[in-house]
Amino acid sequence: MTTVAAPTIHSAGKAASDRVYNFSAGPGVLPEPVLRQAQQDIWNIQNSGVGILEHSHRGPVFDKVLAECIDDLREVGNIPADYDIFFVQGGASSQCFMVPMNFIRDKAQTADYFNTGKWASDSIKEAKLFCNVNVVASSEATNHDRIPARDSWKFSNNPAYLHFTSNNTIFGTQWKAIPTHPSNCPIVCDMSSDFFSKPTDFSRYDLVYAGAQKNLGPSGVVLVVAKKSLIDSGRDDLPTMLKYKTHARNESRYNTPPTFAIYLVGQTAKWLKSFGGLKAMQAYNEEKAAILYDYLDRSSFYRGHVQKDSRSLMNVTFKCPTEELDKKFCKEAEKAGLDALKGHRSTGGMRASLYNAFPIEGVRALVDFMKRFESQKH
Amino acid sequence: MTTVAAPTIHSAGKAASDRVYNFSAGPGVLPEPVLRQAQQDIWNIQNSGVGILEHSHRGPVFDKVLAECIDDLREVGNIPADYDIFFVQGGASSQCFMVPMNFIRDKAQTADYFNTGKWASDSIKEAKLFCNVNVVASSEATNHDRIPARDSWKFSNNPAYLHFTSNNTIFGTQWKAIPTHPSNCPIVCDMSSDFFSKPTDFSRYDLVYAGAQKNLGPSGVVLVVAKKSLIDSGRDDLPTMLKYKTHARNESRYNTPPTFAIYLVGQTAKWLKSFGGLKAMQAYNEEKAAILYDYLDRSSFYRGHVQKDSRSLMNVTFKCPTEELDKKFCKEAEKAGLDALKGHRSTGGMRASLYNAFPIEGVRALVDFMKRFESQKH
Repeated sequence: MTTVAAPTIHSAGKAASDRVYNFSAGPGVLPEPVLRQAQQDIWNIQNSGVGILEHSHRGPVFDKVLAECIDDLREVGNIPADYDIFFVQGGASSQCFMVPMNFIRDKAQTADYFNTGKWASDSIKEAKLFCNVNVVASSEATNHDRIPARDSWKFSNNPAYLHFTSNNTIFGTQWKAIPTHPSNCPIVCDMSSDFFSKPTDFSRYDLVYAGAQKNLGPSGVVLVVAKKSLIDSGRDDLPTMLKYKTHARNESRYNTPPTFAIYLVGQTAKWLKSFGGLKAMQAYNEEKAAILYDYLDRSSFYRGHVQKDSRSLMNVTFKCPTEELDKKFCKEAEKAGLDALKGHRSTGGMRASLYNAFPIEGVRALVDFMKRFESQKH
Repeated sequence: MTTVAAPTIHSAGKAASDRVYNFSAGPGVLPEPVLRQAQQDIWNIQNSGVGILEHSHRGPVFDKVLAECIDDLREVGNIPADYDIFFVQGGASSQCFMVPMNFIRDKAQTADYFNTGKWASDSIKEAKLFCNVNVVASSEATNHDRIPARDSWKFSNNPAYLHFTSNNTIFGTQWKAIPTHPSNCPIVCDMSSDFFSKPTDFSRYDLVYAGAQKNLGPSGVVLVVAKKSLIDSGRDDLPTMLKYKTHARNESRYNTPPTFAIYLVGQTAKWLKSFGGLKAMQAYNEEKAAILYDYLDRSSFYRGHVQKDSRSLMNVTFKCPTEELDKKFCKEAEKAGLDALKGHRSTGGMRASLYNAFPIEGVRALVDFMKRFESQKH
């Protein structure tokens, strides 16, 4: 299997490239060496005479792609042997119902949820179809500008599980520590927008899921990392495709999986290895975010949306003094090669997504632009 | 939006290519002009400075990709205006349960199903979780070597719908006419392996679904074509992602769709247009299949699995006189650049899948090889 070439983010300096800095919140920027490899492999992978998109999901070429992908994810992520790693479809949005559908036995049961933004509240909405939901704490009253303080948490006594969203893409908040539950119930985490952006102690979670389109690959595939014993405990009386155990016990190939998406996740895992693994990735992500947050803290023109202790390393949300200036900012930024900075409608303003593959040069270019914009007479 | 270049299947003669003839049953061969375009667009689509994999699903570039894809599918497929066209995930396997889940109101209801192979029987299995299933007719007793004869059909009186599988990928059978039901109930069709391989009168169906990985694109996306009124009649008390109406009413973007898969379906639709549309495609597919079936009919060495009047234009299944020779055949064929001919374990022998993008030169090359193999002393 061809390994991605070099431990660089970009394969060429920006000046020499026809590509711009892409701040998209997802699908987001991918490592350029991965894209270069994909350009070749789409035509003919491993000299098989067939492109990766066209190989049978049960043939020897894809066997190897899948096996290496899982091995590399386990190695890079330091995922314990008693955890399943498998792929499902339908987006993280489908996990909102699959979690309660698989693990709630009785409508009278309760599950504990933190409400820290859109994804958390979507999860709560779907869970209510299956059980009682206890909202442990919510940041809704302050438009999700923080992770709720510990002294506000109200756990239920014996929930089926505790669910939280580790990084809130829209608002730009991120948990700094893993919450624990006094009952020792299973911990379920939607890690879509910070999965594999830093070392994670997976042994403290029972089930983690993540849409790949932020740090790991394209849209159209969700990665699940879960304790084997939890997966095995899931309900049997569900449609085959809705049981986690179907996918875990058939190594993501009960039916035809999204083969190209899995290939790209595998290539990205190889790239992460060549980058130095998740510790090196974390250092890089911290360095990138610090450049932007430090500038925001010094500026009296721009205003960050999020309280300091809840700031996300992945999605940085900020505003100009007026909505009109926000619009002007986005328009001029795009002309300067800084793409997709418009914030989500729930927060307004701007959002800079700094996922793994986003280069530090792009953050510097953004801050330079912000300085120039601030100094203009508006 | 860039249109695929030329109305050819292959962008170069086989002699000049590093690609082999790919008979895979799916994921299957894609048109080479589509692959060439994808190689460019992965890096930078429409001079946006961002690759197609990395564009937001709500940004202007993907807006255009999706809108053109739907328009082109409607045009090429001649799909009536009162039919929704939308994308879902989870493979055709997920449609096995989504159809009864959405349209069955009461476990006492009955749905009529034809059992013509693995996909049909999977659909029956999942439907039994939701309702009574009446198997109208089955080809199981003869290892699915035919579409059941009309005089064997036993309809129920007033089913919720009638379901059939238009082409049976594993066994190589295909319906030659659309079945009708005396009650005029809705007609639901799994068209995964012959969708868009010929002109289809969609007005005679109520809901059609197809995994894209045979004739339309990569694995990881399912196309649904359905009467708007049927979609609107679906149940409301389901998880959001499991309601057809969620995807239909949000134009496939309730959540992040598999953007690259949709892009490839769109490019393939453009390629179909440039090929001359579905009538030209049908003529080409008939010509390809005839070459192989005519040779099978003349040979006393090879034996086709399927009865003549049920033969599929998409998947041609055949055997050598012994299993040992089948193995030898596949091995030597692969060396000769004829890839993925091994049949499914349910039928044994060989299977040549001749989807839209499979070139006629490849069928001739196969028949030449078959002649050489037959003439060897075994």
